[in-house]
Amino acid sequence: MFDINKVCIIGGDKRQVYMGLSMIKDGINSVFYAMDKCTMIDEDYSSLERAVEKCDCVVLPMPLSKDGETLFTPLSDMKIPLDSTLCDIISRKPIFCTNSRLLKRTGDYSRAVIFDYLDREELAVLNAVPTAEGALEIAMRNSPKTISGSSCLIAGYGRIGKVLSKLLYAMGAHVTVSARKINDLTWIRLNGCNPIETSEIAKGGGYDIIFNTIPSMIFDRNTLSAVAKNALVIDLASAPGGVDFDEAARMGIKAIHALSLPGKVAPVTAGEIIKNTIYNMVREE
Amino acid sequence: MFDINKVCIIGGDKRQVYMGLSMIKDGINSVFYAMDKCTMIDEDYSSLERAVEKCDCVVLPMPLSKDGETLFTPLSDMKIPLDSTLCDIISRKPIFCTNSRLLKRTGDYSRAVIFDYLDREELAVLNAVPTAEGALEIAMRNSPKTISGSSCLIAGYGRIGKVLSKLLYAMGAHVTVSARKINDLTWIRLNGCNPIETSEIAKGGGYDIIFNTIPSMIFDRNTLSAVAKNALVIDLASAPGGVDFDEAARMGIKAIHALSLPGKVAPVTAGEIIKNTIYNMVREE
Amino acid sequence: MFDINKVCIIGGDKRQVYMGLSMIKDGINSVFYAMDKCTMIDEDYSSLERAVEKCDCVVLPMPLSKDGETLFTPLSDMKIPLDSTLCDIISRKPIFCTNSRLLKRTGDYSRAVIFDYLDREELAVLNAVPTAEGALEIAMRNSPKTISGSSCLIAGYGRIGKVLSKLLYAMGAHVTVSARKINDLTWIRLNGCNPIETSEIAKGGGYDIIFNTIPSMIFDRNTLSAVAKNALVIDLASAPGGVDFDEAARMGIKAIHALSLPGKVAPVTAGEIIKNTIYNMVREE
Amino acid sequence: MFDINKVCIIGGDKRQVYMGLSMIKDGINSVFYAMDKCTMIDEDYSSLERAVEKCDCVVLPMPLSKDGETLFTPLSDMKIPLDSTLCDIISRKPIFCTNSRLLKRTGDYSRAVIFDYLDREELAVLNAVPTAEGALEIAMRNSPKTISGSSCLIAGYGRIGKVLSKLLYAMGAHVTVSARKINDLTWIRLNGCNPIETSEIAKGGGYDIIFNTIPSMIFDRNTLSAVAKNALVIDLASAPGGVDFDEAARMGIKAIHALSLPGKVAPVTAGEIIKNTIYNMVREE
Repeated sequence: MFDINKVCIIGGDKRQVYMGLSMIKDGINSVFYAMDKCTMIDEDYSSLERAVEKCDCVVLPMPLSKDGETLFTPLSDMKIPLDSTLCDIISRKPIFCTNSRLLKRTGDYSRAVIFDYLDREELAVLNAVPTAEGALEIAMRNSPKTISGSSCLIAGYGRIGKVLSKLLYAMGAHVTVSARKINDLTWIRLNGCNPIETSEIAKGGGYDIIFNTIPSMIFDRNTLSAVAKNALVIDLASAPGGVDFDEAARMGIKAIHALSLPGKVAPVTAGEIIKNTIYNMVREE
Repeated sequence: MFDINKVCIIGGDKRQVYMGLSMIKDGINSVFYAMDKCTMIDEDYSSLERAVEKCDCVVLPMPLSKDGETLFTPLSDMKIPLDSTLCDIISRKPIFCTNSRLLKRTGDYSRAVIFDYLDREELAVLNAVPTAEGALEIAMRNSPKTISGSSCLIAGYGRIGKVLSKLLYAMGAHVTVSARKINDLTWIRLNGCNPIETSEIAKGGGYDIIFNTIPSMIFDRNTLSAVAKNALVIDLASAPGGVDFDEAARMGIKAIHALSLPGKVAPVTAGEIIKNTIYNMVREE
Repeated sequence: MFDINKVCIIGGDKRQVYMGLSMIKDGINSVFYAMDKCTMIDEDYSSLERAVEKCDCVVLPMPLSKDGETLFTPLSDMKIPLDSTLCDIISRKPIFCTNSRLLKRTGDYSRAVIFDYLDREELAVLNAVPTAEGALEIAMRNSPKTISGSSCLIAGYGRIGKVLSKLLYAMGAHVTVSARKINDLTWIRLNGCNPIETSEIAKGGGYDIIFNTIPSMIFDRNTLSAVAKNALVIDLASAPGGVDFDEAARMGIKAIHALSLPGKVAPVTAGEIIKNTIYNMVREE
Repeated sequence: MFDINKVCIIGGDKRQVYMGLSMIKDGINSVFYAMDKCTMIDEDYSSLERAVEKCDCVVLPMPLSKDGETLFTPLSDMKIPLDSTLCDIISRKPIFCTNSRLLKRTGDYSRAVIFDYLDREELAVLNAVPTAEGALEIAMRNSPKTISGSSCLIAGYGRIGKVLSKLLYAMGAHVTVSARKINDLTWIRLNGCNPIETSEIAKGGGYDIIFNTIPSMIFDRNTLSAVAKNALVIDLASAPGGVDFDEAARMGIKAIHALSLPGKVAPVTAGEIIKNTIYNMVREE
């Protein structure tokens, strides 16, 4: 285990800002770099070298990069190439990052201590909450009915399906959830929802709102025409998603691809989640 | 009891449209008048006289009027004065309306059978659901945190307070609810929330979101400065509401006055609620 | 407001014992009288006069009396007549009691300060919890099915109906609740249960468990034969109750009259409830 | 897939009786053998050969045997040895049984089609419900407090821990759940309970009721003395369980070993669960 008394946060969006501010509240001296457009924080260091030098560890953003070549720094005009220069600066400190496989290809990180916080299961579990709440917000905004009394279908009973189905059920919706394993189908029923095999989704119908959480083409033309004609469709699966959006448009079905909800709808909570995940990794060291 | 086989719906917003369409699904022949801008329906009658004549009863909008002089007809350019001409046309049929006191002052309705559906308690109870969901949607959109884990205050434990507190609690918020009667404070605690006397709201604090449901000035300058500094404030009480919005603006507190939520966030459900209330009144006759 | 630093608890069952022990934990010096058979406490005073003299107030038991002539003292062989002698001893101190109307008839209490804690609504609300849990325990013990998946009827939507329906619903039962007011029927539906008019109970059916909370003859021969043939019937209404037990026996229906559940199933909680009710009364003085 | 139109149920307790009766309701002609003491059913066959011959399949009891040598037939005085005679009779039909490993050692079942319904995960999931309800019933009967407001510890977050924690939380208890994986600890928190690492159970305290679901010695002398002094302890782990009952007795702690709850507290539901598990196995064939 090592101490984290001073953390250098390099790049990222509002989540990283809130993560850093929350660390400061916990008594950890966070410094920020390449987030100069954000008015909520001050940056004290003129060079990355100095900032890193004074700190116990480095936190890189989520995602690590959008273009595969520079760090993700939406709150700055700076360009920080993912290259051996960066590697020289940061690799002497423990690094908390996402997409560590990409990072390791951009320099000699063989001696670096790298923690990939996106690999951690608790981060994925915790992110299911802002994702489900974001999906709910989208559903509420786009449906002319209340959630209470609505008929909802959730495709998939992974983390998001579990949290979302519980939320919708608690709000008084009639919730159908699809899964493949008989075990999951059993839990779905025990939790007050109606279980349906994923392969038989097209046999259902009459839904007001459909949420997809499965990252493969579940809602193709046939399925859409069978179950989604009067529904709002919200796809939560990462690109390319599980909904044929072109077909949906052709049929006049309102379909929304909702990506990266935690950072968008609840950046404070998303920052808190990253912080706690990093704390857990430090504690387990 | 009388039959309603053919209903004449005169004026109103989308709620009345959806109410009529839902009646049609139930086998009741609804006709619409003064809603010509709405593309979801056809109007078959050139004159109000004829439309009313063919029907068993008349449904007037909610609200009855915005200016006190003409019927509320936002979906038409027609002006229908609330006067003795209208009275002559509609008063021979049972009338379902809101604000029946105003209506009765505009003509000789002494022999008319008038049902005020806004007076019905089940309509108020049922409307608490879209109101609470609308408040939740506003809270989600304007808060950088998830509801789960947020600290919420609800001032007032009437219908809206009851539904909203249940919703927030089920979503994992820490919910404080204010009430005056010891009885209500007891129920609040039994339902998993933290009870606080309304007169002592200013003694609390640390809230992320504050919902007001009490139609009197609860959140004046002092209370705002005591409990709302870092909070989002959503006022659900009808005008003039219970929040000093000028003071809130001065303090940099985000405060939102959310009115008439059912019709705005869930017109289908709101129409359904009016329909069922009318059905109940018919059944009880 | 007056202080309660030393309380004299006279008679009663385990609830009064636990009430006193809980007061002691709060720093209030409780003394017990006429509870000598209970091994959990010591009685320090040889005479009632002395015990009362040293205290700030007196707490009488629930119920006040079973025979109408002596205090209810099931934990002692003592007989304490409700008469002017008792009145002389206790009437100079504030008295917390139940059935104050009976007490006042047994002596000159015209100058006494009497608080009837059974009249308090929060006590009734809070007692709904141990009553509902006790009813649940009886149901579980006597039903060969799990509550989850069972079909339950609750007659009446007062305090007990509200708490019990919430409990059964949370456990996964299919819950039908009867009420008379449309308002209550609406709340029942909003809370996930199936509403039915009390006058139409006999039209339902197929119940596994029936709970009655209405203190009038609801489950007479006709209703029993219509809805209870294969059901377990639990009557929670105070004597004479709302179930024709003779008819039930004749039909081979298992029917249980469950009275005074709080003291029986959860005396610690029941004592805590009385204590908190007394505290509330002191605070409001 | 094969048809099951006529099922021969051999031995077992009430669960098998209710399973058979429920099959009959579904239109399956169940016949019973070696359950002659049960008055709820008739046995039509004088010999096992004939009974089996007329049927499509055979259902053996749960457990298969108590003594390892004869079939478990608590509802009959018959002794049916687990031997090659039995094998000759039943092995030509599909066999649904428990402990198939034992069965296979008692005869030449090499050509038999054997389904072990106790191996099925949905049976284990579904049995978590009667187990949790049975545990709750025991807790209610033995605790002088209501569940609402009680402080409960559940050791282990497997199937029973999941269902039981949800139940207790819904009833208003303060629920602490122990687990080892950070993932589980995260879910525990998301579900409104307080997570604690199983290795740190001894650091907690103040519990009213402790439920153990872990089949290893968690509650040894040290842990009992740290957390259980004033608690009721209910061990749900199969023998030898996870509680040192001798030490508990020595310390005056009330500890209950609750085994095989589904069959005891809810035989109808338990029979239904076995039936549905068999149906699932048939469907998947």
